[in-house]
Amino acid sequence: MTTVMVQIPKTPAPVSPATRSVPTSADVARLAGVSRATVSYVLNNTSAVRISEPTRRRVHEAAKELGYVPHAAARSLRAGHSRMVLMPAPSIPVGPLYSQFISELQWALGRLDYTVVQYGSVGLQGDEAARAWAELRPVAVLVPGTGLGPQGVALLRRSGARAVVTLGPDAVEGAHALLMDHAGVGHSAAGHLYARGRRRIGVVVPEESGLEAFSLPRLAGVRRALHGTDATLTELPLAYEEQAAAKLAVRWRDLGLDAAFAYNDEYAMLLMRALQDEGISIPEDTAVIGADDLLLGRLLRPRLSTVHLELPSGRDLAELVDRAVREPGAATETHTVLGATVVHRDSS
Amino acid sequence: MTTVMVQIPKTPAPVSPATRSVPTSADVARLAGVSRATVSYVLNNTSAVRISEPTRRRVHEAAKELGYVPHAAARSLRAGHSRMVLMPAPSIPVGPLYSQFISELQWALGRLDYTVVQYGSVGLQGDEAARAWAELRPVAVLVPGTGLGPQGVALLRRSGARAVVTLGPDAVEGAHALLMDHAGVGHSAAGHLYARGRRRIGVVVPEESGLEAFSLPRLAGVRRALHGTDATLTELPLAYEEQAAAKLAVRWRDLGLDAAFAYNDEYAMLLMRALQDEGISIPEDTAVIGADDLLLGRLLRPRLSTVHLELPSGRDLAELVDRAVREPGAATETHTVLGATVVHRDSS
Repeated sequence: MTTVMVQIPKTPAPVSPATRSVPTSADVARLAGVSRATVSYVLNNTSAVRISEPTRRRVHEAAKELGYVPHAAARSLRAGHSRMVLMPAPSIPVGPLYSQFISELQWALGRLDYTVVQYGSVGLQGDEAARAWAELRPVAVLVPGTGLGPQGVALLRRSGARAVVTLGPDAVEGAHALLMDHAGVGHSAAGHLYARGRRRIGVVVPEESGLEAFSLPRLAGVRRALHGTDATLTELPLAYEEQAAAKLAVRWRDLGLDAAFAYNDEYAMLLMRALQDEGISIPEDTAVIGADDLLLGRLLRPRLSTVHLELPSGRDLAELVDRAVREPGAATETHTVLGATVVHRDSS
Repeated sequence: MTTVMVQIPKTPAPVSPATRSVPTSADVARLAGVSRATVSYVLNNTSAVRISEPTRRRVHEAAKELGYVPHAAARSLRAGHSRMVLMPAPSIPVGPLYSQFISELQWALGRLDYTVVQYGSVGLQGDEAARAWAELRPVAVLVPGTGLGPQGVALLRRSGARAVVTLGPDAVEGAHALLMDHAGVGHSAAGHLYARGRRRIGVVVPEESGLEAFSLPRLAGVRRALHGTDATLTELPLAYEEQAAAKLAVRWRDLGLDAAFAYNDEYAMLLMRALQDEGISIPEDTAVIGADDLLLGRLLRPRLSTVHLELPSGRDLAELVDRAVREPGAATETHTVLGATVVHRDSS
């Protein structure tokens, strides 16, 4: 089979809509024979002002005829704030777990009449990124990961954000915090391996950049769990590539390890395959445990032990955002939200 | 290990920033002792107007002192259009391939000074969704998948979008189209299985909603490839769950199939495991081929054959958007962009 990639010139568009001007609320008012204020009241469904049903209908019909769409930015300028909740788009590929959490959150915020916008601030870091976010004048900002400091939070607040919520390992001054402490994941994994009698424990640390926010706390959690015991900890830097895993597997017997916490299920699959190809049996020679509890772990042989993560519920987070927007002066809240439970299968 | 989920009340925030007012460009002008126009020229880096270095410095210092951040919406209202490129956030979990494509696209559009915003319009369909997007007054809209019709495109254009680009199986009137015809994926897979001597070919159709936009064209591609040959096609609806795959595997011998195109590599992994657990050998009894060319396929035994997809380059797409924004009246372009190549390994 060969790659098909063809360019087909197409017939011209009939009339360029760009030459027509964008219909405004003034146009709607003119056609409906009402004031602009009335148009605004009707289209924004303001209940404070009584407007007769025929007038409402006239405004709706005029808006439809002209194809008028309200301008969110203009409306937010008038209102002094928007209903926009900004979430920086993660710059690393996210797993199915996190995707699902984001979907649920968007749905829950949508029900509370917020518009969730994901903004990819590629290449911007920390307070520089906060500045770019502030330009969109969101009413709330949800920041996953690390990097935002107290100055960034202050800048967002000054620019009208009523709530800033961080999802990460640390709380930041001035922001609400959902503490997602990945150390607990490593701690659970190491505790399990230790309890199964393993004493020379390797910890996979992905070499892909962007994952440090997760991998370093997981590593620290293992260290904490093994502190003061007779077990040793060996860091295993690993790229998500077959050759890298094969190289590590060749050195495995020299490393003298009897267990590995493989960062997550995908790295565990990579490592297990390489070890098995080297003739190392799992779990007899080496116990392996992943994290995330993905379906693929159950499809492996031996079935992969894992750490099941419990992310915060999107609905709870949406309620926190709404509460914070309504009471912007209230004390910041800190919640610890990452549950970690070992699921013991056959690989450990 | 038990799940830890604690709520810690925290010390109140020092002073509510929300009680202070948001600094405006008028405040900056007052502090710097210049006009608002000068503030705007300096902070927007307008080269058309000559402003002395000391004045520039005064404006920047005043902006910094006040913590002033320009308001993107106000700026776009003045300019008559924004630099915002809106991309509806996909409502289904996206794979690593698509994540990478989006990252590259955002990076490339960022270099051309566009701000990419992903907007999750959960629950809205087709032209209703277009209306929600139009409220943000984007200068361009990139719509993945299906659902947007000519009316939605017209509405977006009327609301000031200079370019609408669809990424999907069909072109929509008034919009530029990147045709990602997944039929080619199925066609390649079926052609390969047929060439390997297989004649009773099953096609996995995921039951998860949202995937039809990909799975139905892939199925149609298989049908086209087998049309007029002596091969049969059997549709295999399958949920991404172990039990569902086990049920299918139990019926496998009755189905009398000698090959399966498993939609993608993840479903292929699921199906292969279930078939192997049933004692069906791959590829001897049944050949299996996936799609997407993920790393996990190379980690399976037998190594998974797959269809490698070539997505459009983010840079090319960014250039198409920029060209379309600059010449909103030009003819719409249609490009066929999905390359499909079979990677033959051991499972087929």
